[in-house]
Amino acid sequence: MTIPSVRKLMVIGVGVGDPDFVTVQAVNALNAVDVFFVLDKGPAAADLARARQAICEKFITHDRYRTVTVTDPVRDRGAADYPDAVRRWRDERAERLEKVIDAELDAHGVGGFLVWGDPSLYDGTIRVIETIIDRGALTVDYEVIPGISSVQALAARHRIAVNRVAGAVHVTTGRRISQGLPDDADDVVVMLDADLACAAYRDEDIDIYWGAYLGTADEILVAGRLGEVIDHIAQTRADLRQRKGWIMDTYLLRRHPVPPFQ
Amino acid sequence: MTIPSVRKLMVIGVGVGDPDFVTVQAVNALNAVDVFFVLDKGPAAADLARARQAICEKFITHDRYRTVTVTDPVRDRGAADYPDAVRRWRDERAERLEKVIDAELDAHGVGGFLVWGDPSLYDGTIRVIETIIDRGALTVDYEVIPGISSVQALAARHRIAVNRVAGAVHVTTGRRISQGLPDDADDVVVMLDADLACAAYRDEDIDIYWGAYLGTADEILVAGRLGEVIDHIAQTRADLRQRKGWIMDTYLLRRHPVPPFQ
Repeated sequence: MTIPSVRKLMVIGVGVGDPDFVTVQAVNALNAVDVFFVLDKGPAAADLARARQAICEKFITHDRYRTVTVTDPVRDRGAADYPDAVRRWRDERAERLEKVIDAELDAHGVGGFLVWGDPSLYDGTIRVIETIIDRGALTVDYEVIPGISSVQALAARHRIAVNRVAGAVHVTTGRRISQGLPDDADDVVVMLDADLACAAYRDEDIDIYWGAYLGTADEILVAGRLGEVIDHIAQTRADLRQRKGWIMDTYLLRRHPVPPFQ
Repeated sequence: MTIPSVRKLMVIGVGVGDPDFVTVQAVNALNAVDVFFVLDKGPAAADLARARQAICEKFITHDRYRTVTVTDPVRDRGAADYPDAVRRWRDERAERLEKVIDAELDAHGVGGFLVWGDPSLYDGTIRVIETIIDRGALTVDYEVIPGISSVQALAARHRIAVNRVAGAVHVTTGRRISQGLPDDADDVVVMLDADLACAAYRDEDIDIYWGAYLGTADEILVAGRLGEVIDHIAQTRADLRQRKGWIMDTYLLRRHPVPPFQ
């Protein structure tokens, strides 16, 4: 009798920036991995590779793991139908990853993905694995290890709660707020914003809590009235992006005053 | 010259349920604390005390820490003006805590608060400390250590992202969704819901991902079409609450189909 080949994959959230954001559960998972699959791309890839290496060296107590980089397909960011373009890109990425897992991971080996922040928030790793499972060519089982997200790092460093009493929190993208702020939450966390879309609301009664390179030695925080600090943030952001070649930032917009409970 | 007395407080998110959700940063913080201040109340207090003790015993490498319980004021949950009642209650809590810190913590000692989940999400510890600072009677400095929230544990155990491609996520309360679902996010995380307010939407085209006692040995997960599983969840929830005396649960509502990107 042949035992069916089931490859185990672990999607490991390692937090943002500070290696000490790693949980004990993640440390245990890191130590169980035979092969790490790396999907990073873009201008931050080299810095992320260094950060990943620092985490592995700090927390993995053996030297029996390998790292395999998976080349990402080129993504059409200018496509008119943005979600559809993302889906096509994800399918192609799944096919490439499937081939690499099949070639590099033993039939009962454990593959690992280090995810910056938390795998449940604006990260595509779970979806790419689900796509592989749906394709049906490779039998894999997988587990997700949560990690500290940039939203949490932002809130912790500013020492704020993201919600107010009895309030809701809206987590969204720069692209979405460029078309309007949500009308049923007065606390709005914005991620994936390449152009500081919040600048359009500079005349509104809003506070901003902004942070870049959270958890790292380069961390920078700015908080204040949106209209008063947005130019400073924009300039800081442009300078930093030029100096490092990339920027990772996120922010909370907080409408004032606290409206009556609805 | 007298060095001014500045008490250091650490608000330490320890995740939900599983002690291994604790981050390395939190482990270091736990080991720096002289006195833990405990604010728990309600039916879960005894179980939370046991869970807290388990975390301290597992991760603190010395025996020089003490635990001091602060009796909470009674909260008027039936008040017509709910946010105002919460604020009054918080002010009274701040006054009590201030007295206990003053009495129990040496002038340069480190006080700690173990927060279930993440201090930035539906937790009052940061606010109570800010209230003490605003009162001005006690000089304190404090630091916030993020932790894995129940939202993240829910998503990890269901192996889902809480957002969809290019989508927004709305994090809200049972009280708020009882008055309507948000119209600008199709993924809605509901916390602090004593009565499964989502049952009102059982005829809508919605999936639910529900979890209780996340991260613990009693963890239970249910996912499916809201209309098909809500009665099962309600019954399970009632049984569990009766058996244990308390329940902690959270859920994601996911509208279908994926709407076109707006």
